[in-house]
Amino acid sequence: MTVSPFDHPLLSGLLGDEEAARHFSVEADIAAMLDFERALAEAEAECGVIPRDAEAAIVTALAAFRPDTAKLRAEVTKDGVVAPELVRQIRAAVGAPHDTYVHFGATSQDVIDTSLVLRLRQVIDHIGLLLGENIVRLTGLELEFGERQLMAMTRMQPAIPVTVQDRIVSWRAPLDRHQERLKELSGRLLMPQFGGAAGTLEKLGDKAAAVRATVAAKLGLGDAPQWHSQRDALAEFAGWLSLVTGSLGKFGQDVVLMAQTGSDIRLSGGGGSSAMPHKQNPVKGEALVALARFNAAQLSGMHQALVHEQERSGAAWTLEWLILPQMAVATAGALRLAAELAAQIESLGH
Amino acid sequence: MTVSPFDHPLLSGLLGDEEAARHFSVEADIAAMLDFERALAEAEAECGVIPRDAEAAIVTALAAFRPDTAKLRAEVTKDGVVAPELVRQIRAAVGAPHDTYVHFGATSQDVIDTSLVLRLRQVIDHIGLLLGENIVRLTGLELEFGERQLMAMTRMQPAIPVTVQDRIVSWRAPLDRHQERLKELSGRLLMPQFGGAAGTLEKLGDKAAAVRATVAAKLGLGDAPQWHSQRDALAEFAGWLSLVTGSLGKFGQDVVLMAQTGSDIRLSGGGGSSAMPHKQNPVKGEALVALARFNAAQLSGMHQALVHEQERSGAAWTLEWLILPQMAVATAGALRLAAELAAQIESLGH
Amino acid sequence: MTVSPFDHPLLSGLLGDEEAARHFSVEADIAAMLDFERALAEAEAECGVIPRDAEAAIVTALAAFRPDTAKLRAEVTKDGVVAPELVRQIRAAVGAPHDTYVHFGATSQDVIDTSLVLRLRQVIDHIGLLLGENIVRLTGLELEFGERQLMAMTRMQPAIPVTVQDRIVSWRAPLDRHQERLKELSGRLLMPQFGGAAGTLEKLGDKAAAVRATVAAKLGLGDAPQWHSQRDALAEFAGWLSLVTGSLGKFGQDVVLMAQTGSDIRLSGGGGSSAMPHKQNPVKGEALVALARFNAAQLSGMHQALVHEQERSGAAWTLEWLILPQMAVATAGALRLAAELAAQIESLGH
Amino acid sequence: MTVSPFDHPLLSGLLGDEEAARHFSVEADIAAMLDFERALAEAEAECGVIPRDAEAAIVTALAAFRPDTAKLRAEVTKDGVVAPELVRQIRAAVGAPHDTYVHFGATSQDVIDTSLVLRLRQVIDHIGLLLGENIVRLTGLELEFGERQLMAMTRMQPAIPVTVQDRIVSWRAPLDRHQERLKELSGRLLMPQFGGAAGTLEKLGDKAAAVRATVAAKLGLGDAPQWHSQRDALAEFAGWLSLVTGSLGKFGQDVVLMAQTGSDIRLSGGGGSSAMPHKQNPVKGEALVALARFNAAQLSGMHQALVHEQERSGAAWTLEWLILPQMAVATAGALRLAAELAAQIESLGH
Repeated sequence: MTVSPFDHPLLSGLLGDEEAARHFSVEADIAAMLDFERALAEAEAECGVIPRDAEAAIVTALAAFRPDTAKLRAEVTKDGVVAPELVRQIRAAVGAPHDTYVHFGATSQDVIDTSLVLRLRQVIDHIGLLLGENIVRLTGLELEFGERQLMAMTRMQPAIPVTVQDRIVSWRAPLDRHQERLKELSGRLLMPQFGGAAGTLEKLGDKAAAVRATVAAKLGLGDAPQWHSQRDALAEFAGWLSLVTGSLGKFGQDVVLMAQTGSDIRLSGGGGSSAMPHKQNPVKGEALVALARFNAAQLSGMHQALVHEQERSGAAWTLEWLILPQMAVATAGALRLAAELAAQIESLGH
Repeated sequence: MTVSPFDHPLLSGLLGDEEAARHFSVEADIAAMLDFERALAEAEAECGVIPRDAEAAIVTALAAFRPDTAKLRAEVTKDGVVAPELVRQIRAAVGAPHDTYVHFGATSQDVIDTSLVLRLRQVIDHIGLLLGENIVRLTGLELEFGERQLMAMTRMQPAIPVTVQDRIVSWRAPLDRHQERLKELSGRLLMPQFGGAAGTLEKLGDKAAAVRATVAAKLGLGDAPQWHSQRDALAEFAGWLSLVTGSLGKFGQDVVLMAQTGSDIRLSGGGGSSAMPHKQNPVKGEALVALARFNAAQLSGMHQALVHEQERSGAAWTLEWLILPQMAVATAGALRLAAELAAQIESLGH
Repeated sequence: MTVSPFDHPLLSGLLGDEEAARHFSVEADIAAMLDFERALAEAEAECGVIPRDAEAAIVTALAAFRPDTAKLRAEVTKDGVVAPELVRQIRAAVGAPHDTYVHFGATSQDVIDTSLVLRLRQVIDHIGLLLGENIVRLTGLELEFGERQLMAMTRMQPAIPVTVQDRIVSWRAPLDRHQERLKELSGRLLMPQFGGAAGTLEKLGDKAAAVRATVAAKLGLGDAPQWHSQRDALAEFAGWLSLVTGSLGKFGQDVVLMAQTGSDIRLSGGGGSSAMPHKQNPVKGEALVALARFNAAQLSGMHQALVHEQERSGAAWTLEWLILPQMAVATAGALRLAAELAAQIESLGH
Repeated sequence: MTVSPFDHPLLSGLLGDEEAARHFSVEADIAAMLDFERALAEAEAECGVIPRDAEAAIVTALAAFRPDTAKLRAEVTKDGVVAPELVRQIRAAVGAPHDTYVHFGATSQDVIDTSLVLRLRQVIDHIGLLLGENIVRLTGLELEFGERQLMAMTRMQPAIPVTVQDRIVSWRAPLDRHQERLKELSGRLLMPQFGGAAGTLEKLGDKAAAVRATVAAKLGLGDAPQWHSQRDALAEFAGWLSLVTGSLGKFGQDVVLMAQTGSDIRLSGGGGSSAMPHKQNPVKGEALVALARFNAAQLSGMHQALVHEQERSGAAWTLEWLILPQMAVATAGALRLAAELAAQIESLGH
């Protein structure tokens, strides 16, 4: 099945990004969930919450663990989350007497949300690199063509001449600010979710804070109280993704508009037409506009999910799953496309 | 890669619908595109636009055609659409001298949009059946429990007693209207797109209308002028999908609210928790709310795509691809879930 | 206060529409609510639910009624709706012994939703006329310039020559379909809401259906069961409004794109610039794009409001108030602007 | 005309905020535009761009200036912006020979965007205070009731007991982070827009940077290059507004859910019903949910406006006007409502 273009064997090459998409595969999700369970067992053993023997049994079992995905798929339709069945399978793999120490004191949201954060960290690293690459490419264009002339267009009408640099700055300066924003929000986002059944880590008693800090350290994340019903960091990140695609959409739209007549810009490798072989369509520019508008629409869904009822909203949480991975991949795809488009520019201005 | 839950090996069992998703696979898309090319060759031969020999060669080649999908994937990144490379491959399969009659007078949008319509017709059949099933199930609940009492809740506060029937009607009556709406809009939607390079079928001369009508008849679609830059029927259909999921979201939300205390409703087979084995979470009701809010967010993207520049907007068209298939699968998934949820209801009211 | 451009003393001249906005004033709302209360009293007297004397007293009092709006404003902050205090004021105006027959058997939602429908009917009449005017104007342009040539633009690139008529048809044909859709949906929308406290008209006993039918007839509306928690007809209408502005946004965008170089189109009366007196900005075309994107964004909010909890959702209902009036005025404004823009076209094509 | 509830004589008391709305009135807008023109004249005189006499004449004229708003309204329909006619009127008030120095080197976007920023600064101050008040009130509730018990609800089902403090923290902690975010983004937002016709301040020669820095200093803003086609700071601010209303929507929803049965929370002053005098509707909680969903929908429109064509997009710019003021007032209204709702809480937990 390939409902989304980001998963589509043909269209994902145009619109998606393999490296970003990789982190949203089942394999990556399960691997990150196992990382959480391992870190949890280790932390709980270190803090004296579970026996050292149990830790050893769990770590060993996790290393060899292979999920029964058919069973996971069957049970998720009943539970609404993959965690209960996954934990059952891990417990079965660990076996008595240590199985009761698996996932001890944790809940589904802990393992699923922390898995998401662990993978978002990698996505952010990847997107950050792509963002830097775009800044470098635009700076290169500025160095090469910046002093040439261009007719400024205001309200889609010729205004007065400006330099090519003036326009390139309008593409690049927002990317600089997006780097700054990413640093700020990462500090709020890259935290484990660890709260137990209802956020109080009630099974860990006075060792709760120590276990949480240890889990965070083992996973390379910051330490912060549970945020299971506070989704602002995820919505903020979604907003950042849409800011990035919005800025790239402006770049894409400008390129498409310049390419109309062909004198302001010269592009290599435009797209062909099945009816008109003479055409060189500015396909990547158009795709950037599409991805910008896509993410702008998605963003409203992520913000709707802020109305997260009580200690856990199945509805709001599921809504995030439907949207956030696609926004991340759309952003990586747009950054990849924008860098490629910049590389296609053979000439700018006059 | 499994970025979207509708493509996800685990989550699609909860949120998606296999039958609907099937129509958005590459295989289904290519099969429908080949259907279009076959109908086109046949119609053009019947109308005397291409030789009968060419038709025969094309029909034979199409029957045996297997696309080189790696090449399709590579070229779509350049062309922005799969059609140019697909047509090249079909032409190569047909070979000289008839290859020039493949896709004669048509353009990428003709084959891609008509393929979409052919598959939406099947999706509509499927969704229509699911909609009918929901109406039947709700009617069954009404017959079984309709005369019992329920405390009406207005503004989330107890108001006065009503009957169970009163509430079930608020779930079912919108579905009846959705059936009516579906009939109305289908008459506008299920048309081939056939216009050639810029919508004028300029290569077909005075046979254009006859070819188009013949293509439509062969494909079992209505006949209508090309609509390549008029996307209102698609946006209208998207609105209908979101009306359906919105109505089902209300049903889901009501079930979840009734299930809070457990006395108004009794459900079988609720979802389990990894931390609290005693819980019976109303998972399907929550998923219905999530899918309703998802489609409501998507709908704005489909309407943004109405601003379709000139004779063909790559940006607006691509935006539709990113959204419409997911809305259709979300709707089928919601209908499936709602029917299952209705079947889980063991008791309603007092 | 003038937060919305549609209420703004300066900007409403550009973006709004006085006639449509008039129906969303407090005065129009209260007048329509009084119409409902009058029709209700008359219908209940005719059906023998309230005494003829009470009817006479109520009708007389309503004719002279002037609301204390300061008190309405104060109480709406507490009640969340204007109806409770309005009914109190009407009862005070009627006085003993007939005051208890005011609003008899009805609830806030009945009077507020029916007032909305009564005003939407007038808005629909107005918008329908504007839609017709646009079709006439585009047909006029087709007659005048239709046979001239134009370079088709596909994917923002020159494709092949078409006629001006080909492009005008892409602007006009959707409007024809919107007229058809408006007829279909009006049959579902123009119904009173009348259900009493929880939708069951429990105070009217076996006369409920007769009273409702009489109220509907007196108000010139169709008769249908109460729909207080079924908001599909409103969401469908919102979708229609956005289809209209989307189609007009495409027209506006096309005009703006043609006006870039100035040879495809000649417009009279373009907008001036405070910095560049030589410019003639295609302001109305740009405003059409803005209104299309505005309505597309709003539409998702109206569909979110379909998740209307139980017998009455204060949250979902209030959300409609925040959105639907603006969508209606945006659509009327866009139709007015599009007709004006069509009238500004002095030449099309070559 | 009162299309938006935020401008509505009755509903603005429920949903709006007078202090925030005040900054979006025509009067406030014109006053801020005059502030810009004054600062510009002073800065240009100080930098030797215009004569000191001209500065004196302009400052004097501005102090006494009263706009002809009927003329402004008429011309904005043609120009799409109020600035050209406003500048004409100011020039007429200044008179020869100094009139040519009014608005010297500036363009419409400079004065309009800078006016917006000046007013957003005041809105931010106001919203910041309201945010602080909410934090104080929630802290107060925590001190008073924090140690009591509450049944945690996960997936809308009773889970395990937690303390009242646990839930209050989920309302308050996001507000703390919103304060942090506001500081970060303010540094990017509170900058004048000053670029002249096409962003290059071409009329100011080598004094451009000095004039801009002086204007910024006089207006109490930071100094930064023009950003006329880089709208990321505005979209980021819109995202922040929606984060705030989203967090408050969660608070509102939780209160509404707790108020269903009445034992978890006791509220004073609930809303009345026109049909059921016994009811105490949690109106403010519902309004918070409505405002959260409203802003979430609007946000997608603001992000669509990031695709800002070339040096100035009339369409994207106008779209901002349609959305941002309403988002700001919705946020102020929500903060006011949330503080009031917190004050209505007489008891929490058991």
